Amino acid sequence: MKSVVGIMVGSDSDLPLIQETTQVLEELDIPFEISIASAHRTPDRVAEYASTASDRGIQVIIAAAGAAAHLPGVIASRTLLPVIGVPVDSGPLGGVDALYSIVQMPSGVPVAAMAVGRAGARNAGIFAAQILALTEPRIAKRLADYRRQMAESVESKADRLAQTGLTRYIEEKSKSSN
Amino acid sequence: MKSVVGIMVGSDSDLPLIQETTQVLEELDIPFEISIASAHRTPDRVAEYASTASDRGIQVIIAAAGAAAHLPGVIASRTLLPVIGVPVDSGPLGGVDALYSIVQMPSGVPVAAMAVGRAGARNAGIFAAQILALTEPRIAKRLADYRRQMAESVESKADRLAQTGLTRYIEEKSKSSN
Amino acid sequence: MKSVVGIMVGSDSDLPLIQETTQVLEELDIPFEISIASAHRTPDRVAEYASTASDRGIQVIIAAAGAAAHLPGVIASRTLLPVIGVPVDSGPLGGVDALYSIVQMPSGVPVAAMAVGRAGARNAGIFAAQILALTEPRIAKRLADYRRQMAESVESKADRLAQTGLTRYIEEKSKSSN
Amino acid sequence: MKSVVGIMVGSDSDLPLIQETTQVLEELDIPFEISIASAHRTPDRVAEYASTASDRGIQVIIAAAGAAAHLPGVIASRTLLPVIGVPVDSGPLGGVDALYSIVQMPSGVPVAAMAVGRAGARNAGIFAAQILALTEPRIAKRLADYRRQMAESVESKADRLAQTGLTRYIEEKSKSSN
Amino acid sequence: MKSVVGIMVGSDSDLPLIQETTQVLEELDIPFEISIASAHRTPDRVAEYASTASDRGIQVIIAAAGAAAHLPGVIASRTLLPVIGVPVDSGPLGGVDALYSIVQMPSGVPVAAMAVGRAGARNAGIFAAQILALTEPRIAKRLADYRRQMAESVESKADRLAQTGLTRYIEEKSKSSN
Amino acid sequence: MKSVVGIMVGSDSDLPLIQETTQVLEELDIPFEISIASAHRTPDRVAEYASTASDRGIQVIIAAAGAAAHLPGVIASRTLLPVIGVPVDSGPLGGVDALYSIVQMPSGVPVAAMAVGRAGARNAGIFAAQILALTEPRIAKRLADYRRQMAESVESKADRLAQTGLTRYIEEKSKSSN
Amino acid sequence: MKSVVGIMVGSDSDLPLIQETTQVLEELDIPFEISIASAHRTPDRVAEYASTASDRGIQVIIAAAGAAAHLPGVIASRTLLPVIGVPVDSGPLGGVDALYSIVQMPSGVPVAAMAVGRAGARNAGIFAAQILALTEPRIAKRLADYRRQMAESVESKADRLAQTGLTRYIEEKSKSSN
Amino acid sequence: MKSVVGIMVGSDSDLPLIQETTQVLEELDIPFEISIASAHRTPDRVAEYASTASDRGIQVIIAAAGAAAHLPGVIASRTLLPVIGVPVDSGPLGGVDALYSIVQMPSGVPVAAMAVGRAGARNAGIFAAQILALTEPRIAKRLADYRRQMAESVESKADRLAQTGLTRYIEEKSKSSN
Repeated sequence: MKSVVGIMVGSDSDLPLIQETTQVLEELDIPFEISIASAHRTPDRVAEYASTASDRGIQVIIAAAGAAAHLPGVIASRTLLPVIGVPVDSGPLGGVDALYSIVQMPSGVPVAAMAVGRAGARNAGIFAAQILALTEPRIAKRLADYRRQMAESVESKADRLAQTGLTRYIEEKSKSSN
Repeated sequence: MKSVVGIMVGSDSDLPLIQETTQVLEELDIPFEISIASAHRTPDRVAEYASTASDRGIQVIIAAAGAAAHLPGVIASRTLLPVIGVPVDSGPLGGVDALYSIVQMPSGVPVAAMAVGRAGARNAGIFAAQILALTEPRIAKRLADYRRQMAESVESKADRLAQTGLTRYIEEKSKSSN
Repeated sequence: MKSVVGIMVGSDSDLPLIQETTQVLEELDIPFEISIASAHRTPDRVAEYASTASDRGIQVIIAAAGAAAHLPGVIASRTLLPVIGVPVDSGPLGGVDALYSIVQMPSGVPVAAMAVGRAGARNAGIFAAQILALTEPRIAKRLADYRRQMAESVESKADRLAQTGLTRYIEEKSKSSN
Repeated sequence: MKSVVGIMVGSDSDLPLIQETTQVLEELDIPFEISIASAHRTPDRVAEYASTASDRGIQVIIAAAGAAAHLPGVIASRTLLPVIGVPVDSGPLGGVDALYSIVQMPSGVPVAAMAVGRAGARNAGIFAAQILALTEPRIAKRLADYRRQMAESVESKADRLAQTGLTRYIEEKSKSSN
Repeated sequence: MKSVVGIMVGSDSDLPLIQETTQVLEELDIPFEISIASAHRTPDRVAEYASTASDRGIQVIIAAAGAAAHLPGVIASRTLLPVIGVPVDSGPLGGVDALYSIVQMPSGVPVAAMAVGRAGARNAGIFAAQILALTEPRIAKRLADYRRQMAESVESKADRLAQTGLTRYIEEKSKSSN
Repeated sequence: MKSVVGIMVGSDSDLPLIQETTQVLEELDIPFEISIASAHRTPDRVAEYASTASDRGIQVIIAAAGAAAHLPGVIASRTLLPVIGVPVDSGPLGGVDALYSIVQMPSGVPVAAMAVGRAGARNAGIFAAQILALTEPRIAKRLADYRRQMAESVESKADRLAQTGLTRYIEEKSKSSN
Repeated sequence: MKSVVGIMVGSDSDLPLIQETTQVLEELDIPFEISIASAHRTPDRVAEYASTASDRGIQVIIAAAGAAAHLPGVIASRTLLPVIGVPVDSGPLGGVDALYSIVQMPSGVPVAAMAVGRAGARNAGIFAAQILALTEPRIAKRLADYRRQMAESVESKADRLAQTGLTRYIEEKSKSSN
Repeated sequence: MKSVVGIMVGSDSDLPLIQETTQVLEELDIPFEISIASAHRTPDRVAEYASTASDRGIQVIIAAAGAAAHLPGVIASRTLLPVIGVPVDSGPLGGVDALYSIVQMPSGVPVAAMAVGRAGARNAGIFAAQILALTEPRIAKRLADYRRQMAESVESKADRLAQTGLTRYIEEKSKSSN
């Protein structure tokens, strides 16, 4: 199936984080492509990628980068597709540098910033799906299911907590995560 | 014409800022609705607004708020439409509080954060247009024109700077802005 | 006994932290209920919880959340009971995001913010007790005892330090915590 | 009528800010006392004030201070009454110093931190009222009215915006504030 | 004379700041060119500029930008010339966003960051001169003179302070700056 | 009378701030000298000053500087006299840069950091006096008087507030400061 | 020998850090006393300690605390002795909270802030010695020796690096620290 | 071969970090010298080093330091050679203190700041090479090769990712790094 979401990371060290994104896209059955390109080490590769994405059928681009995270903005400067940026929490400043470099885009060329780190990587996939769902009822339905399941999961945890009590709940959770 | 973008501000003191958003939507000829609702003072109004927006034909929601800016996230919790958040730089912390409250959404319920203040307000309108352009060729065309004009404006400024020299350029700019 | 304090966490990963709260409530013999609800994943559950709490006899609500920590504020928007917020130090920004999202509530709908992390979780329980003590002399008495014991504990440590000397004190403390 | 809320500011330069607090207490018809004492320049005065407040009938203490804002914590160390802290946004660090000095209280002696500046000052009064409302039905009723009026004010603004349109709304608002 | 320093600003609103740079280059008699190009609005113009600079005889590039200040890094990705970045203190975050976006460049493609704002703009010119002075003895001599004059200016101020006394010194300085 | 406190500022733009220091030293009748030297523009002058201060009879050095405020640390590296550092809140980062550059001295060479800006400048003079008071009973006496007057001033303000009420107090204060 | 330096920590968890202080005082042969008292849990103990310190012969007080670190300021409010504050880097905010709570003291009651953590703890001891050295030539001599040894240690490391080369130096250093 | 780059670290604990710098200089075949000197513990050694560097043939100086990182600025005050500063991410504030102390140099005496930590250490070597390459065609050629190899490395990783797929890529990478 033809990819509709394009994922780009600035370094292969960002790949484990971006698995949060690919997993949610797979759960929602949205075809995607993924690659590596650095805004600073391979600027031509990024420019080429961004300017051809729309013609390849990509509808939303997700870009993740850390530190002076220029990748999402540099891609956004070369396409009119919506670009979602994921700030990676690598390095000594803990991701605030990546957040500022992604979210503070100047007037005219927006990037949609997600949360720093894992939550942001997962949400990038969901936000891409929310855009696609505007015209794909199947995705809209899967998103609605996904959100219902999230709510049910919270409720079932609340039920279990009510039954077992706090101490045992924490013990069991701690066991099952070992 | 039926509104496709819904704009919500948390307080009427945010309206001057949000004019950046409405102006760009008008320039791109995208019909929008705008209203006021506070996540904390009128939670029912916000819930009602968010949960009926899709049925009213709204495709993208833009929400602006300052301080502990919960409005975009609270709307996002009640709809599957893409929600764009604009952090307002009011109050003593200069908008970092609003940025964190908007961008750091937990896994599962994304908000697309824009830059703090005016640039973010303008970009919210452009990003909404980029989403709509995926299925509206006319909007795509207007966006392409808009971006071309931005580029031409930069180039014409560069040309004028080359002709007049730095000192006179600054003088003339300073005059014309008085 | 009927619960007078309602504790709500945004995720079951916050439960170990909130044990600081439940322990101090148990020490002070204050009956409480505890549950899980996410402001973003289960907004109806939160709204239902908050708007019925007073009728169930709850007098103070404690809510803990991390990142864009909207839970305390969203609860506060649905009840006139005092709401105490505990910022959880999860995620890359170390809890400053949660602190700002909780403490910077807009004019009209306050949340009482405690310190980030464990100290704040414990203090949430104590602050709830201080509110209840205004009308419950037994709680007031237990709080006075609790504070006296804290003071005596500091003094007995100071006495031991005076007797053993610094080096041995640190050695013994390090042993006993292994 | 006997004061039930005690307000203390660290310096008379904090008095204009604290008017936000006194106004809301007056609106809610809650009797209060107000004075000036510095944790550092008049420690005995603060200790005396805090340790006698309860006997004088005070039920909630509100303390506002800027910079290394020790006043709320120092008061809290001398009383078991609930202490609400208002960080004042004076000085070069913009109130973050006051916020940290107030909210980061160690385990055992809580202070309920409000937002930095005006919103926090107003909310301190409302939060005090929420505590008192637990046992004073008249205050509970006034608080419910107050919140209803806040909601109605938002709704009436939204109505006016719907009628006049954005441009004229902003013009009229700008005029009326001159 | 052929320009050896290339100055690029991201927006014509940065031109008054960059006068600090051009003034010091003129004082040191170093020929420069200056233009406007936005990393996001005119990416091709920036790429063209950066990749041809060396062939045009440029030896050092100075780039100034604010917010998510990608300009210096994007230029650095297209040239092996030394690139000096000046963070502009525009916008609500006061230039920390620009500083992080410029200084936190990833391994492999450095940008030399200067101080935020005016001091950084002036120092960019001086640092460019220090690089050029390595092979241009005349520039080295002018730099040595410039630094000597700076030192003499400090000393003459110290002398005047010693003669006039503090109060009168401040009065006279305040007058002369009106 | 021979100066016992040496004051050094990094730039004559810091002189108005340092008047807070000189005023308190004059009030306490402590003889001081004051001069200008820049750690970066006149390093020899600073080294000379610091290494001869003790022989000239100086007992405490106060140094004020902004931005990358190296002056206090550079002086401390050349003398064993106590050095007090005052972070100046000039420039876009609001003095946090100066604070970090002064307070974060490495192990072995301390600088005593005061608060950023005016409060810190005044306190530098008082702290110098507290050091000198250890061996000068007259200074100890004046300090005790000074502190008593501070306390009395707070108390007399509190008395006036009690008499006039809040509204009139603020009006009169606002008038007297015009 | 009679103690001339008084050391106070806010919690016995701060004792390992304060060993940096006691070690340097022992190296410089300066008699000290050390105890534990919490500004919030044992305010009377702190007040008693601070107000009697001078009469017991204490000449300098060193106080270490974390989070909302009021201890140094509360001591300073009760004595005219110089008070040195050490911000402890415990808790989620990494010590910035403690730094602000210590350094940002209001006009009139100074605390001399040291660096956050170990460097600050060591420097507190050295700074106390620098104060005492003003009147104790033996301490002045030991401080001069201490500083000379620090310099010689740096130089001998530089010599070894010159001889062994970088790789071997790092290997040997890494071995010797295991 | 005669050293053209001089590297100075403030403490031998910075040596492992600076290996990033020396490795890249070795890869580019640029002769360098390296030593240890502390701006605060050995100010004369630093002054001597900085003021003789140019005469020894050094053309660029790289200085790394943490906390109140004065070393690069103190060196810059004693030489007209370009000085590159590397902020070391040691200590509780995570390197932001070092960054501010290095980058915020006052007007007149620039330091070229690199990123905090490892990326900055590597980039310091590359930036030094970029300066030297202006007059050394061999270095220019090696830099061009180095950058081409960086780009090829990114491309070959992208190719491998395309072939193996994300899951296996991450597995293999995780294995090879064990």
